[in-house]
Amino acid sequence: MKLELENFYKILAPRPAVLISTLDARGRTNAAPFSFVMPVSRTPPLIALALAPQRHTLANIRETREFVVNIASEEILEELWICGKSFPKGVSEIKESGLTERKPKIVKAPGIEQCIGWFECALEFEKETGDHVIVVGRVLNAEVKDEFFREGEFDLLKAKPLMHLGGENFAIPERIARPQK
Amino acid sequence: MKLELENFYKILAPRPAVLISTLDARGRTNAAPFSFVMPVSRTPPLIALALAPQRHTLANIRETREFVVNIASEEILEELWICGKSFPKGVSEIKESGLTERKPKIVKAPGIEQCIGWFECALEFEKETGDHVIVVGRVLNAEVKDEFFREGEFDLLKAKPLMHLGGENFAIPERIARPQK
Repeated sequence: MKLELENFYKILAPRPAVLISTLDARGRTNAAPFSFVMPVSRTPPLIALALAPQRHTLANIRETREFVVNIASEEILEELWICGKSFPKGVSEIKESGLTERKPKIVKAPGIEQCIGWFECALEFEKETGDHVIVVGRVLNAEVKDEFFREGEFDLLKAKPLMHLGGENFAIPERIARPQK
Repeated sequence: MKLELENFYKILAPRPAVLISTLDARGRTNAAPFSFVMPVSRTPPLIALALAPQRHTLANIRETREFVVNIASEEILEELWICGKSFPKGVSEIKESGLTERKPKIVKAPGIEQCIGWFECALEFEKETGDHVIVVGRVLNAEVKDEFFREGEFDLLKAKPLMHLGGENFAIPERIARPQK
């Protein structure tokens, strides 16, 4: 069947759910959930996000030229959902949702303690693309909770990363398959 | 623990696995698997891929300015893996892997019949970004197999989309969770 064109993205799913934490020019914290995100380069390490222009996240990235990508797990589904609600600019979704800040190593914006891992990023460039803005950040520091990364690989079954399916539906991948050939 | 910067993407996973099918200037078919892919706009409908510059897929998109995004399911894991092997330019991975072509409606490049859904795309722009090239395409036609899209939503449990975890490891999301609040 034909999909309405504006709904094409519904079957490019589920996608990794992340919380982006930022500061505004006055140093006030913001955090919001996104799933239009992908790696775009290993060397240098670059990550791309597509953000709606009205989001506080984009305003903050423009003001401070940095952001933290926090990888979400099933454990914080309720808190992530609260972070997605509409709060006035300057209100910290991290505090409102009951999450806690994690001290960053390089950037000024805090991470979120209860996440699987964290990428501290500096804005590399942005490009308006249709009804969103593509933001590319350079990963300055990448960390992961010890228990979720073993022998050089992500331990999916332990980490239980949250994937966004659409609306209030999320998926948790719990089965691994490998080609036989 | 710290992640080596070039390995940051290992925990931004699993990611939707797609096969990109293209034609070269001589009309020869190519198909290759990717997971650096995300929606970037609803209106107009735009999709972004990050491609390594040496891939035939990128050369073909530059030659013909179109491509088809085929959403992969667990059913074609073996075939997708074969499509990822190195074949000479001009050899059709669709045929080599035992998949079959699907007649496109708008572009010239064929889709792949055994997939969940298909986006026929025209190249909008490309941008070199680190060691990859970001390619943004406009979705001209989007279709999905009837049985995988019900009441306006993607039926994840039926479709069994394949997510790439890393190397030969893929994940299949089979559990759905929703916030209670």
